[in-house]
Amino acid sequence: MQIATPYLMFLGDVPDRLAAKTAFGIADWRPEWCVGQLRLPGCAADLGIPDLTLEEAVAKGCKTMVIGVVNAGGVLPPHWVDEIVKALHAGLDVASGLHVRLGSVPAIAEAAQAGGRALHDVRLSAETFPTGKGTRRPGKRLLTVGTDCSVGKKYTVLALEKGMRARGLDADFRATGQTGVFISGRGVAIDAVVADFISGAVESISPAADPNHWDLIEGQGSLYHPSFAGVSLGLLHGAQADAFVVCHEPTRTTMRGVKHALPTIREVIDLNVQLGRLTNPDIRATGIAVNTQALDEPAARALLAELEAGYGLPATDPVRFGVEGLVDRLLAEFPETGTAA
Amino acid sequence: MQIATPYLMFLGDVPDRLAAKTAFGIADWRPEWCVGQLRLPGCAADLGIPDLTLEEAVAKGCKTMVIGVVNAGGVLPPHWVDEIVKALHAGLDVASGLHVRLGSVPAIAEAAQAGGRALHDVRLSAETFPTGKGTRRPGKRLLTVGTDCSVGKKYTVLALEKGMRARGLDADFRATGQTGVFISGRGVAIDAVVADFISGAVESISPAADPNHWDLIEGQGSLYHPSFAGVSLGLLHGAQADAFVVCHEPTRTTMRGVKHALPTIREVIDLNVQLGRLTNPDIRATGIAVNTQALDEPAARALLAELEAGYGLPATDPVRFGVEGLVDRLLAEFPETGTAA
Repeated sequence: MQIATPYLMFLGDVPDRLAAKTAFGIADWRPEWCVGQLRLPGCAADLGIPDLTLEEAVAKGCKTMVIGVVNAGGVLPPHWVDEIVKALHAGLDVASGLHVRLGSVPAIAEAAQAGGRALHDVRLSAETFPTGKGTRRPGKRLLTVGTDCSVGKKYTVLALEKGMRARGLDADFRATGQTGVFISGRGVAIDAVVADFISGAVESISPAADPNHWDLIEGQGSLYHPSFAGVSLGLLHGAQADAFVVCHEPTRTTMRGVKHALPTIREVIDLNVQLGRLTNPDIRATGIAVNTQALDEPAARALLAELEAGYGLPATDPVRFGVEGLVDRLLAEFPETGTAA
Repeated sequence: MQIATPYLMFLGDVPDRLAAKTAFGIADWRPEWCVGQLRLPGCAADLGIPDLTLEEAVAKGCKTMVIGVVNAGGVLPPHWVDEIVKALHAGLDVASGLHVRLGSVPAIAEAAQAGGRALHDVRLSAETFPTGKGTRRPGKRLLTVGTDCSVGKKYTVLALEKGMRARGLDADFRATGQTGVFISGRGVAIDAVVADFISGAVESISPAADPNHWDLIEGQGSLYHPSFAGVSLGLLHGAQADAFVVCHEPTRTTMRGVKHALPTIREVIDLNVQLGRLTNPDIRATGIAVNTQALDEPAARALLAELEAGYGLPATDPVRFGVEGLVDRLLAEFPETGTAA
């Protein structure tokens, strides 16, 4: 899936910021692609970028209108359909993270076909993949894994991409979720892939590469999450991760959406090493990334220091304190080959 | 998915028995549903049941024509399409295990709609499921797990269903693969479910039940298979298995389709217990099922005796030597409650 950029961000009339979580993620990481936003009367979210009409968006070079919002009930409200049809008529592609397939709405399908515009359903991958083979492939790979869902796995790899590129390293973010696909303009929402092809899809989006190249693969779920552990395991096997960073949210007491207790970081490290060895016998943890949003700065720094001492690994909040320590450790553990060094 | 029985078995013009593997599985386990077969000129497979025309099949009460075969290339050859259209016109539903969606062929879609007939794509589940919750539910559950794919997981639960019912026990086979769905007329091909819903789908097909009821859940893949371990883990978590039987094929040297070595039965037991505890802390192995087809009887019996001694578990070839020992162990470990015993 390849989505044309830049984007007009469609926010509809969502009741709060949370319903536009995907849009905010895109605007955070690809501000240069987010030319403007289109909001309907009553919209309570604001990306802080210019409000544009469809005509203004086209004039400013937008190629795709991105529906990075969720609506209650999973059905497309009629006034959204009207706006999507108008966007297609105005010459924009439309990409959606909704559960509803855009093309399943006749008016949208007709408008897209009439104008030769593309419809992208990021959450509903139509692509097919070979099954995973587990055969080692060249290039280096880092995967983010978690004590739970929604603990910063995507933000950590995006911060790593930025930090590693700033240091002249050859690194690519590999999206495995819908927001990530919008952020990179490509990739696969792994949670929408048919179960048999999880590891195969990851092998496809992270193909053989130069020995010094790093793929930074967005993790999903947790091996300890009863709803999603299968996805996490398929991802781990397909990634053949050389290195992984454990992501954690320190104030959570039960796993997201279920009643299970959170595992410890130690348990997460041990199980990922144990199971990851199936496709990469040298897999190892290279750092800890903590979402410290709920802590004040002294508390955050104290927690990170404690984790560093306890685990012998660099620990940081990638968004708040940067990723220097994580990158230093990667370079120390996996020195570049074939250079003058 | 609920498929109307009995069946007319469509074999097309497949070149060998292997291409009709699904059809043979159905005929083995549900001979009473397989009223006849429909073979096209050149067909090299034979279920050993009457060859019927479409009209004869309808006259004998057939409700569904089952396409339990694979064709090279994954495309429906035109002469199969003709026969499927005729079957729909003759008043039969059509159920397929092909990778192609029946309704994607316009002639088939039109014939089904015109006659009000159902099309079932067993391999392409359109059902949606809630995500797994991991909350304990009443009823007992046994899952078959494997050292590899295709080692007898389906045959073992089917043999257990037969053996347990013969002893007056309340037990239901729960299909998770396409052949199993045809055999039970219901269920979900888990490998066709979107990755996020693996454990949720298993929770759906094996709902809360009477405390003495056994669901016998067909396993898939292996926790040690680099292509499919994610599916196996989601199944394990969704099943909340009280008991599991390890299935094994003793002559295999590498895992199916990949170059990885087979794990030992001990490794499979340990990892399923370790990971299964997340949703059922009391999970335990209750037996070993070996496909001994490649061994003569003395060799088979010697191997089973050796496994019984080594693991302290009943070991059998369910098809060749029955399941008495497996059932005895289940009853000993999980005595029925609320009876006069």
